Amino acid sequence: MSSRPGVYAEAGVFVCFEGGEGSGKSTQSRRLAAWLVESGYVAISTFEPGDTEVGRKLREIVLSPETGEISDRTEALLYAADKAEHVDTVVQPALDRGAVVITDRYVDSMLAYQGAGRALDLGEVEEVARWATHDLRPHLTVVLDLEPEHGLGRFEERDRIEGESLEFHQRVRAGYLRMAAADPDHYLVLDARADVDEITGQVRAAIAPLLRQAVRR
Amino acid sequence: MSSRPGVYAEAGVFVCFEGGEGSGKSTQSRRLAAWLVESGYVAISTFEPGDTEVGRKLREIVLSPETGEISDRTEALLYAADKAEHVDTVVQPALDRGAVVITDRYVDSMLAYQGAGRALDLGEVEEVARWATHDLRPHLTVVLDLEPEHGLGRFEERDRIEGESLEFHQRVRAGYLRMAAADPDHYLVLDARADVDEITGQVRAAIAPLLRQAVRR
Repeated sequence: MSSRPGVYAEAGVFVCFEGGEGSGKSTQSRRLAAWLVESGYVAISTFEPGDTEVGRKLREIVLSPETGEISDRTEALLYAADKAEHVDTVVQPALDRGAVVITDRYVDSMLAYQGAGRALDLGEVEEVARWATHDLRPHLTVVLDLEPEHGLGRFEERDRIEGESLEFHQRVRAGYLRMAAADPDHYLVLDARADVDEITGQVRAAIAPLLRQAVRR
Repeated sequence: MSSRPGVYAEAGVFVCFEGGEGSGKSTQSRRLAAWLVESGYVAISTFEPGDTEVGRKLREIVLSPETGEISDRTEALLYAADKAEHVDTVVQPALDRGAVVITDRYVDSMLAYQGAGRALDLGEVEEVARWATHDLRPHLTVVLDLEPEHGLGRFEERDRIEGESLEFHQRVRAGYLRMAAADPDHYLVLDARADVDEITGQVRAAIAPLLRQAVRR
């Protein structure tokens, strides 16, 4: 499995929201999709893991506390399988139709959680994730940055991943910031504690120049 | 993910049965385990996919006709996840205790079915499978070779994989024979249509010299 350059779709626009638990990813991704649809674009809002038929079963396995201990490699491969199905059956077909595809989590989640968070070799995890997704990369990834202490406090009940240690979530956050710093053309890092409407405005401003690849209905 | 040399356990004995549908793998692997136990060795009989808690759920997904179409990469990654869990929680711990571990299917099944059978790049599938399993390899793989026409005729109802075309199963068979030919020290190819007791005898003869690494109780 040779290392390969990133692939950026030549039709449609691929946007990803990343960040720790409670950072507001799903709110912002829904807002962005609604605004694009109102503006006349074809836009779909999707997420990982779990937004395919197989993915729902895999999400249940990786997130349910009932699953108990599974090996780090098993976990990484289950996330990779979810991604493979998501890209092949949801993301790429929508991009081919010229849609704006907005996903709540993508490859960077796997690199941050299974690479930086677990004790796996990051380069190896990245190879698996890139293979699963044909190395398709978002035109823009918005990282909603938040100290884990703030995000985790929002939850009463936690799933398998949320229940990990504070140190785990700190490694995840550092992983996101490293990825963003290494590729500033494709990343936008925003303070997740900022005013929600302000974040929405910053995201819209960053997306606007990309919309020339998007179809209107 | 760099290409790496094979890893052979220094304690215990790892034996694998491979072959197409209906070739008699499960019969021969059970017979071998029973003979070893009678002879005083610690032996476990296991299989892929599905011989762990997570693996049972994955087996249901990959084999059930209800799953319908899933992408080739999704399928390969689900098999890889099953292998990762199997090696980490069943195979390696038993080898560490000096057991003879006899598995009905392992990495070669993934290479034959997802690599040779599907339209995926064999080298890439192999990298994923090797990563999933820490590149742990069987001391001996017994290939029970059978023309697909004979094996498939045994089944009235077929699962997702058995229901594939004859050409698919012919590519699978050719894949097994290629792997065996490339590494004759670690493979034994037997005609699956031979007398069952004769096959059992040939397997015992091939295993005997390996048992110096196995503990007796």
